[in-house]
Amino acid sequence: MTDITGRNVGCGRLLVIGGRENRTCGTGPLKEFVTLSGARRSRIVVVTTATDMPEEVTAEYATVFSRLGVSSVTELRLIGRTTADDPATLTMLEQATGVLISGGDQSRLSMLVGSKTNVLLHRRLHEDGLVIAGTSAGATALGRWMILGGDGATSSVRIGPGLDLLGNVLIDMHFAERGRLPRLLSGIALDVQYLGVGIDEDTAIMVDGDRFEVIGRGVVTVVDADRATVADAGHNPMALFDVRLHLLPAGCCFDLEQRKPWFGPTREEEE
Amino acid sequence: MTDITGRNVGCGRLLVIGGRENRTCGTGPLKEFVTLSGARRSRIVVVTTATDMPEEVTAEYATVFSRLGVSSVTELRLIGRTTADDPATLTMLEQATGVLISGGDQSRLSMLVGSKTNVLLHRRLHEDGLVIAGTSAGATALGRWMILGGDGATSSVRIGPGLDLLGNVLIDMHFAERGRLPRLLSGIALDVQYLGVGIDEDTAIMVDGDRFEVIGRGVVTVVDADRATVADAGHNPMALFDVRLHLLPAGCCFDLEQRKPWFGPTREEEE
Repeated sequence: MTDITGRNVGCGRLLVIGGRENRTCGTGPLKEFVTLSGARRSRIVVVTTATDMPEEVTAEYATVFSRLGVSSVTELRLIGRTTADDPATLTMLEQATGVLISGGDQSRLSMLVGSKTNVLLHRRLHEDGLVIAGTSAGATALGRWMILGGDGATSSVRIGPGLDLLGNVLIDMHFAERGRLPRLLSGIALDVQYLGVGIDEDTAIMVDGDRFEVIGRGVVTVVDADRATVADAGHNPMALFDVRLHLLPAGCCFDLEQRKPWFGPTREEEE
Repeated sequence: MTDITGRNVGCGRLLVIGGRENRTCGTGPLKEFVTLSGARRSRIVVVTTATDMPEEVTAEYATVFSRLGVSSVTELRLIGRTTADDPATLTMLEQATGVLISGGDQSRLSMLVGSKTNVLLHRRLHEDGLVIAGTSAGATALGRWMILGGDGATSSVRIGPGLDLLGNVLIDMHFAERGRLPRLLSGIALDVQYLGVGIDEDTAIMVDGDRFEVIGRGVVTVVDADRATVADAGHNPMALFDVRLHLLPAGCCFDLEQRKPWFGPTREEEE
């Protein structure tokens, strides 16, 4: 069901951040996250499963969210499947207006896949207006499949199941900074129905239904192998003909269904 | 004029090498260069203009060419426009069957642009079967325009006139190793008629008329912005929609006129 502006009623937003977002002056992706989550009335939960420094990470986010006027920031340190299925965990997530999944090592997030936490996040995102952000490791985990590792500079990649909050998209992060296009291309070559989305640092896509808008300082690189020819996928080097590539800075939008970019209204105003 | 195989009669070959080609065991791009230049009967001239270590570079190439059976290897150390227009220089180049332009700093090669050496190389390549190879700095200098610098990880690039031995192509090298796709994209965004060709280390394109074949260990990345939409070219970050991208490992071919890749016969035999 959509409202008169075409927005899905009840549908929340995903904010997929490429890592190293500005955490000091409260601009960019984190500010957008707070605005979407209800500004001063936000109730934010920070999931620190991926990091091995949960106290430091929580303190850092609490500081920046406090600067943005948010008083309710709670850490959720899910450390195993039991805690991810725990009723107390679900209660906390049920009350949140915004959930941020921190960076770290995305393989630690694998244990959330298919948990009651995962089911709740999926339901509240699609039916209950929840805002979910993931940064770095927490960003790639948002897809149906996530990149677990692989060298950025050569065509090798390891992928595994993700939280499935964003279908048909394979996300990579720290994208330009770590030269990860070869890795992302090798990922989508394994299954060309997946759209590759590489997000630079301090940059994010804000997903609303089937569309996203780019915010932040860098670029989002979209690679679409839908009409491509692939040979030797999974090997190095592979051959790949006719991939479509888009470089999208802030204000550009993308239709995930039609696989088409356009200049959004915020960008047109700038120009 | 073409012969019955479709090859241009009298037309030489260009071998554009992405740098760090194997110089010890005599395989890959350098072996191909020697084979094309006449094998044991090759008369090879090494142009060391770009490097600040001309003796070492010449000695290294002389060793590998000697291993490949070539006895005639001469250094040509063009150090200014006068030497590039000198009749003795032209005589030496007139007698060569293969010319290799070494790596180093490509801005040093700018002084060759439009010189009598440049004119001679152009004529002998197109009419007299000369084989010309360039590696690293010597590779990018072969195009009508060459990349002079710019950060690999962000969208900034500096270009200047090149030797114009390969028209309508902008060449970048050490491509995957230094994450240079953003730089190459920013180059072609300045003039979308140019095809971007990024060559990995120990990898080369062998150009024969309007076509090239990939040889060596890595991948050649072709980016074609012919049908692209560009906004903010020359700025960082720019927007670029609908670039076509191809990853071409050894045995893949590309038609520079039609802008289409295909699997060449050597690759088909392998499979």
